[in-house]
Amino acid sequence: MEEALQQGPFARWTFAYEGKAKRLYRSPEGERFLVVFKDDATAFNGRKRGRIDAKGAVNSRISALLFRLLEEHGVATHFLGEVGPGQMLVRAVEIIPLEVVVRNLTTGSLSRRLGLPEGRPINPPLIEFYYKSDPLDDPLIYPEHARLLGVATEAEMDQLRAQARKVNDLLRRFFDSLGIVLVDFKLEFGRQDGRILVADEISPDTCRFWEAGTGRKLDKDRFRQDLGQVEEAYQEMLRRVEAAAGSGGGNP
Amino acid sequence: MEEALQQGPFARWTFAYEGKAKRLYRSPEGERFLVVFKDDATAFNGRKRGRIDAKGAVNSRISALLFRLLEEHGVATHFLGEVGPGQMLVRAVEIIPLEVVVRNLTTGSLSRRLGLPEGRPINPPLIEFYYKSDPLDDPLIYPEHARLLGVATEAEMDQLRAQARKVNDLLRRFFDSLGIVLVDFKLEFGRQDGRILVADEISPDTCRFWEAGTGRKLDKDRFRQDLGQVEEAYQEMLRRVEAAAGSGGGNP
Repeated sequence: MEEALQQGPFARWTFAYEGKAKRLYRSPEGERFLVVFKDDATAFNGRKRGRIDAKGAVNSRISALLFRLLEEHGVATHFLGEVGPGQMLVRAVEIIPLEVVVRNLTTGSLSRRLGLPEGRPINPPLIEFYYKSDPLDDPLIYPEHARLLGVATEAEMDQLRAQARKVNDLLRRFFDSLGIVLVDFKLEFGRQDGRILVADEISPDTCRFWEAGTGRKLDKDRFRQDLGQVEEAYQEMLRRVEAAAGSGGGNP
Repeated sequence: MEEALQQGPFARWTFAYEGKAKRLYRSPEGERFLVVFKDDATAFNGRKRGRIDAKGAVNSRISALLFRLLEEHGVATHFLGEVGPGQMLVRAVEIIPLEVVVRNLTTGSLSRRLGLPEGRPINPPLIEFYYKSDPLDDPLIYPEHARLLGVATEAEMDQLRAQARKVNDLLRRFFDSLGIVLVDFKLEFGRQDGRILVADEISPDTCRFWEAGTGRKLDKDRFRQDLGQVEEAYQEMLRRVEAAAGSGGGNP
């Protein structure tokens, strides 16, 4: 990638940031990023590390299709276009350091934290905010805490909540039509010119997907819990999302 | 105490419950509890243990005076009356397993959890809910989590928040008049006949008191942080609260 960057159309773009799952390069004018999705896999805030073959390409493609779906339904995202396998162009936003988690069923950290059984429906869906901070281990926070931390205003928190709810409505219906239960997912948001945009990615790394009927997990929990067939799960999700998007299923 | 119980007016009362700081005895008809405050001190959810001389008597007396203050201002509590040093009668309520924390200044677990500097004013005061569970280490929860856990309804959570805010307004003004900053405190609530009552205790064990001007800590942080003069701090708070309550300072 680095070599291609030095010669191709991105020759003048500069390295900006490397996260656990992505590398970002800034455009010369500074208004766009090239996002390069990595195959590196991490879990439990980086305490578990590994690699999932072709994950970068799968997550980039699924994210691109889902961002398009959201845009078609009036949800603003940072997505601008796909460049190549595992690469997309996005608007350069000021990332709000929050993870906005939407939960339709109990599982994962929610079940562990509260001693709740797994798979119980949550009605209405639960929206949680976590403060993105590796040294603090991403603590759960209230909207009031976000204001205290100076990371977002009260009005912005209301907007994040409303956007998260809308994204959940759209994605849940879309995945239902693919025979997939959208169990929960994490969104990140960014600011650009006074607007708030959905940023980061939407993929098996950031969502929990359970196959309807069987309950088979088709997401990063296969890696987290060492369930095997991790690559196959990512490919299966890509296949389903591409088929639906291609067949007009992208318009729930 | 146990011997006195067997012979005195509480001869037919039965042992009901022992917590970290109190023992409860149930009245024969079951509608009242005798609360015996202990000198045992614990911190960090029981990971630190010790003893503070006369703490039981001090906490019982301060709680009694503060419960009276709240009742005089229309806040319903479980308090019925003082019996002797370290002993009070209360209504037998169904305890709601939540700690309702009100914060006027940043400190303690809030500062640790969010990496915030200590002593920063919080306006408006912050109200947090923690799920009382030793195995889960009393996690911070949203009102929606309380509903999911089945510990309180949405309407009850609204009521707890409103009561906590009112208690804070009353206590803050009262302690201001004693030259004490009410930094933060924890309340517990119980249900009785469809009403919600302030329960448990309100004392240097459950509040943070900083001397105005000097910032000297006059609460359990002296024990938590091994600051010394723990007993003296509790006695000092008792002296100030008794003087104010006796001089009409009980009516802020």
